[in-house]
Parts: sequence; structure tokens; C-alpha cells
Amino acid sequence: MIIAEILSTGDEIRSGALVDSNSAYLADMMERHGAKVTRHQSVGDDLPALTQVLAEIGQRADIAVVTGGLGPTVDDRSAEAAAAVAGVALALDQRALDDIEGFFRKRNRPYAASNRKQAMIPQGAKVLYNAVGTAPGFRLKIHRCTFFFLPGVPYEMKHLFGQQVLPDIEAMQAGARQFSLVRTISTFGLPESTVGERVAGVTLEYPEITLGLRAKFPEIQVKLYLRTSDENEGGALLDRADQWVCGQLGEHIFSHTGRSMADEVGGLLKTQNATLSVAESCTGGLIGNWLTNTAGSSDYFRLSAVTYHNQSKIDVLGVSQQTLVRHGAVHEETACEMAAGARRAGGSTYGLATTGIAGPDGGSDEKPVGTVCIALATPEKTTGRRFYFSFGRRLMNKRIFAMAALDMLRRHLIQAEPQA
Amino acid sequence: MIIAEILSTGDEIRSGALVDSNSAYLADMMERHGAKVTRHQSVGDDLPALTQVLAEIGQRADIAVVTGGLGPTVDDRSAEAAAAVAGVALALDQRALDDIEGFFRKRNRPYAASNRKQAMIPQGAKVLYNAVGTAPGFRLKIHRCTFFFLPGVPYEMKHLFGQQVLPDIEAMQAGARQFSLVRTISTFGLPESTVGERVAGVTLEYPEITLGLRAKFPEIQVKLYLRTSDENEGGALLDRADQWVCGQLGEHIFSHTGRSMADEVGGLLKTQNATLSVAESCTGGLIGNWLTNTAGSSDYFRLSAVTYHNQSKIDVLGVSQQTLVRHGAVHEETACEMAAGARRAGGSTYGLATTGIAGPDGGSDEKPVGTVCIALATPEKTTGRRFYFSFGRRLMNKRIFAMAALDMLRRHLIQAEPQA
Repeated sequence: MIIAEILSTGDEIRSGALVDSNSAYLADMMERHGAKVTRHQSVGDDLPALTQVLAEIGQRADIAVVTGGLGPTVDDRSAEAAAAVAGVALALDQRALDDIEGFFRKRNRPYAASNRKQAMIPQGAKVLYNAVGTAPGFRLKIHRCTFFFLPGVPYEMKHLFGQQVLPDIEAMQAGARQFSLVRTISTFGLPESTVGERVAGVTLEYPEITLGLRAKFPEIQVKLYLRTSDENEGGALLDRADQWVCGQLGEHIFSHTGRSMADEVGGLLKTQNATLSVAESCTGGLIGNWLTNTAGSSDYFRLSAVTYHNQSKIDVLGVSQQTLVRHGAVHEETACEMAAGARRAGGSTYGLATTGIAGPDGGSDEKPVGTVCIALATPEKTTGRRFYFSFGRRLMNKRIFAMAALDMLRRHLIQAEPQA
Repeated sequence: MIIAEILSTGDEIRSGALVDSNSAYLADMMERHGAKVTRHQSVGDDLPALTQVLAEIGQRADIAVVTGGLGPTVDDRSAEAAAAVAGVALALDQRALDDIEGFFRKRNRPYAASNRKQAMIPQGAKVLYNAVGTAPGFRLKIHRCTFFFLPGVPYEMKHLFGQQVLPDIEAMQAGARQFSLVRTISTFGLPESTVGERVAGVTLEYPEITLGLRAKFPEIQVKLYLRTSDENEGGALLDRADQWVCGQLGEHIFSHTGRSMADEVGGLLKTQNATLSVAESCTGGLIGNWLTNTAGSSDYFRLSAVTYHNQSKIDVLGVSQQTLVRHGAVHEETACEMAAGARRAGGSTYGLATTGIAGPDGGSDEKPVGTVCIALATPEKTTGRRFYFSFGRRLMNKRIFAMAALDMLRRHLIQAEPQA
């Protein structure tokens, strides 16, 4: 078994200004590809601290991934620390320098002399050229351990890890490779404890599987983990366990692949050749933003009218003044007129609307913060519903309001789906 | 100076199933209260790994906070590991046991015998009773280091940390308390390396200050750190250094308080009694979403028309068919008509519009992915500009397009501000 460690560097992480999400990503990826991650660490931009921890890891692990400290500034000291512990000098790598200069040239951005520092690599290291940013990484053996030094920017780190590190991890395992499989089942609408109780039995039915629950607000994800030497057999076992979980959670499940609610709804709309327009008040554009995070969403998404002001509800969506006066902005009737108005304004198959009170102010006894009215307009009819969510915080309310709206549409769409 | 370390335990964190946000919280709190956090680590639910890392920390740090591993299951081994390293036995703490039984009784939940394990505390430790959950923490000296063992559940951890750990950290410093001050200066529009070069000199002018740069895409934040025993004097020094940085970066700076671009723009609109409507194509609702993340944004934000489909640009915003046919959706002229249309539809002081190509598809030689046209309609005139950003990825493009639009409005608004 390959023993792996992870080190994230930088004062931002050390001091708590930044949450270290790189390490979780790396641990997850390395575990899935058969390595055993035994320890993560973080230290600041401090040469003695860096050299000490590199020396320690070098004695313990087979491989280690180090993130951060490869930038152009004086704070960035990973290469210097690595060279010191390995007992080698830094040397200019011409191709890395060419890459960096090219990166700036291509983007018509001024090239700063300080970027040259990023091409200084410990002698004897293999350079991991970076096609998506300025900082190259490098691979260097220190004591018994093969270190991979990668940039801290998550996008660049993930790119280099996939291209340059994973193949090495695979190669190190030769024939004895273990696969870590994981199935992510995403649910919406049940509290975490209820999801946990309903699915706890899966490990009795399938003792080889480890169960995890993850709250990715406002989703609750059920995770099924399996370590196996046979990838196909393992996949079939996960399929059966997934079926078992389906029996427990039914329509609360919106994805078996980790895809977002917006992606799942988009996929259903596309399959059904349907289009969607949205009217958002309290969600402020979040639904439109989620839907358009997916490339190709223009196939089904036509319009979101973020009518934050009542007059805009009247002018853009054709909500009647009378309805607003009689019921106020947060009401099923208003939501219905908004949904119908969005459907009409966008010329789309469906209209979906949210109007509610995200807080912290604006609540009343009758309509406390966390109240939202959601309406769906279909070619046949328009229906509105009122929900109350008690999370209290504005940004959480916006997210759960937007999810609840998309979920209302999803439940409508799956009724129209041919069953497998 | 108090040297502090942090250890988070548990297989969920070790394997990457869970991002460790506790450690960032603890580091931030301890640094603010004068301790110097030198290292974070994470290990799994593994007795040899736990005992080894506790022994190492015990030799290095003055204080350490350990989270996790205090629960009722066999996986929870923190107390056992602590006792082993300290060379003492575990003993039942009657008050902790009473608390645990009371916790279940009060909630009418079944009390499991396994919970008794949570009242087994290393001999000689001070128990940190937990009023908000079942697991008590404890304080125990190992070698030179005072360890605080806390639950991993963030809510319980934070509660116990505030009640039981912070007062000890303050007391340890007696009269010699140090404050960690930080100033966050947020910039937009210059690459990180240029920002770094321009501000590098601040530590020559103000040697007491440590400089950090943080890329919080698409912002680049300049951070000025200062440790001082006099909070007021330190604040005045940071003010002067902040002024110096202003001289280097000028209007690229949009905030001195860490506030978001949307908040800064909202603040300017509010001060000037102005209102805003937005027309979003490629940003898909992101500008509206950012603006409405702030409570009270209804004072100045009226409408965002997310006109993803060309027909909606015509129907909702009054963009002329002719302009779309002649120039296409991504053009300064189209952006201008969108901005003017949003301003008109929302009845607001300003109209702001984005239309561009977020990718990955839809680019051409003339208008590659990353091209965006942004227009601002004011009571006097409407102006459009074309930008090209070379980040390539859809979600990054959406973010930088939205920032560039808000920045165009911000630069207009600050010209109208009375200068201090």
C-alpha cells in the first residue's frame, strides 16, 4: 500500500483566513486511486517551518503532495525549502520560463520580472509544466518520499494533479491496484437525521459498503464507499445498494451522479424539448445563475426576470396591482401571476416563480423570515405553494428557496418521463 | 509568544470526504487573541497515528486544540490516545455522565449505553463540560503543551472553545497580550503579479508589517498583517500603510474592509440615493444574485432582466431586431440598448448590461470565448465597452464579467462622490 501525505502551505491557511479545501480534494482523489492518505498538514510561508515539515514527511510517506508557495512573490518559498531539504540548488528551467513568458504574451498582459522566480526549480527535480497558469510544479524525491509540488490555485492544482500526479500513483501500484469507488446520491427535502435513519440499514444489507452522509446545504448527500480489487464487480454491487437506498428515499433523490439540481432539471427539460422562464424576487437571480452555470443551458433557459421591486413585477411580468395590494408581494396568488407572466414574457413551456422573505428583516407573525411562495406555470395550469424554512440566515434562505423552486419543477417533469 | 497548533481527527477529514473548516475557525480565533498558530494537522481514527502526532505536538507547542474523536463509537479514540501519551488511565467522570444522561432525558431520546464512553476522561485532566451536546471536552498537559480536546461538531466545538479555551489563552498572556491586526485591501483589474510588485515596498516603509496577497478570484486582496501590544497604535500604523498602498494601486482598490464589490457598489448607490436595474445575458443572474446577498439591497436594486434568449432581449428590454441582426448579441451596441432598456424597464437611475461569451462553446475568431460587452446607462448617456478575459472557463468568465460590470458602475459612482 502506498502511504501518502498532504501538505498545504501559506499564511492564509495557517492563520485561518482561508479554509483549506485543496487537501480534501487531494485526499479524496488519492484514496480513490488506491493510495492511503495518513496525514494532512498546513504550515505558513516560513522557511524553517517548511523545511522541517518536508523533512518529517520525507521520512514517513511514500508520496506527498504539497500545494502553494510556487507564486512569484517573496512569500512563495516552496521551491527554496524543497531544495534546502534535498540538499540541492535552484536552477532556471528554460522551458518553464518560456511557458511563463508565453502565458503573459498570449494574454497581452505585462510580464513582470518577478515571474522569473517561478521558473527556478530544484536541481534534479522533474518539472511539471503548467498549461493553465503561470506556476509550474515539480516532482522531487526527498529521503524515501516522492514529493509533488503543485500550485495552490485550485484550478491549476487540480489540472496538474490529474495530468502529472495520478498517472504516477497508478504506475506505483502496478498489478496490486485497489479501487476506491464512491456513489453519490443527492437528496432534497428531508432533514439529515431522517435521511440517516432511513438509509442506515444499507450496511447490514451490503456489509462491504461504508456509508457516509454529507450535508451540502441545502442538499443531503448519501455516499456509498467501496474498496475493491475488481472495478466492475464493485460497480455492480454499488448499483444494487443504490437501488436499496432508492427504496428508502424515493422522489427525494434527484441525482445519482453528484450533479446539481439545476443540471438535473436542465437535463429533463432538454430531453422533453421544453423551455423555462423564471421570475425571481427573493432569490435575486440565483436560479438563473445556477441554470446558466451549465454550458448549453441556452437550449432550454430563456429568461429570468429578477423583479425585486413591486413595480417591476407589474411592468415586466404583468402582475396585477390589485393582487399586490390585496395579498402583498409574498403570496401564492402573486407567485402564480409571476410564474404565468414569466412563461408569457419568455415564450416558454414553463414558468417558475419565487417570492418570499429571505431576511433578516421584513418578516411578520403571519409571514416570518423563511416564508416563500413558489409557483409553477405549465401549459395546462398554474399552481402555487407556500413553504416555511426555519434556517434564519439570508444566504441559506436564498439557496433553499431556489432549490425548492427547482424541485417543484423537477417533480413535475419526472411525472412526464417515460419510466425505465 | 504562545505557540499554538491545531489537530483535527477523523477518517472523514483524513480521506477527504469532509473539508476541515474547524481548523480555519480555530486558527483565526487563536491568532486574533494573540497566539501564534504554527501548524495544523489532520489524522484519521487510528490509535498509533493519534498517539504519535499528540506526542510530537506535545514537544513543540505551548497550547494545542484537538477536534473530533470524542463521540460514543469505537471510532472515537481521542481520550484513549491522550491518556496513552500522558501515561495515565481513563476514569469515569460522574458529572459528565450525569450531563450526558440528562441530555437524552430532556430530549426524550433513547440513551445508549455506548454514550457512557464519552464520560471516560484521562486522569488528571480538567473536564470541559458541554452544555450544548453530549460530548464533554477536556484539558490535559502532555509534555510542555496544554491540550484542549473538543468535539468535532462545529457548533459544539465553537461553544466550548469560546467558553473554556479563550479565557485560558487570555490568561496565559497575562499582561503581555499581543493583538493580531489585519487590513484587507481589495483590488480588481490588475494581475496578481503586478499588484505584488506595486505593493512590495510597503514592508520597506513599514517594517513591522507583514504583507500577504490573496487571489480570491476575480479579486486580488492585499493583506497587511501586524502584531502589536497596542491595538490603537497598531491601527494607526495600518491606516498609514493602507494610504501608501492606495498611492500604488489607486482606483483599482474597491474596498478597505474586505467587503464585496456588490456591497461597495450598493453602498455608493445608497449614499447617492440612486437605483439600479441590470440586464444580464452571459452572467445569467449572477449580478442580481450578488447584489441581493446583502440585506437592504431593495433600497437601490430594482430589476435584473436575465435575457438569455435574443427574443427576450427584444421583448423585455426593447433591443431592436435590427441591432441584433446587424451586430449580433455580443456587441457594444447591443449592450447599450440592453442597459438603456433595463434602466427604462426598472425606472431606475442607472442601467447596467452584460452580453458576452462565457464558453466553452460559442466563440469565434472575432469574438473568442472570454469576450464581453458591458454598457452603463446613466441619466446623461449610455456607453459600452468591449473586454476580453482569457481565463477560458465558463464559471470564471461569468464571475469576471459580473465584476467588470459592477466595476464600471463603481468607477462612475466614485467620480460623483465628495472627496474626503
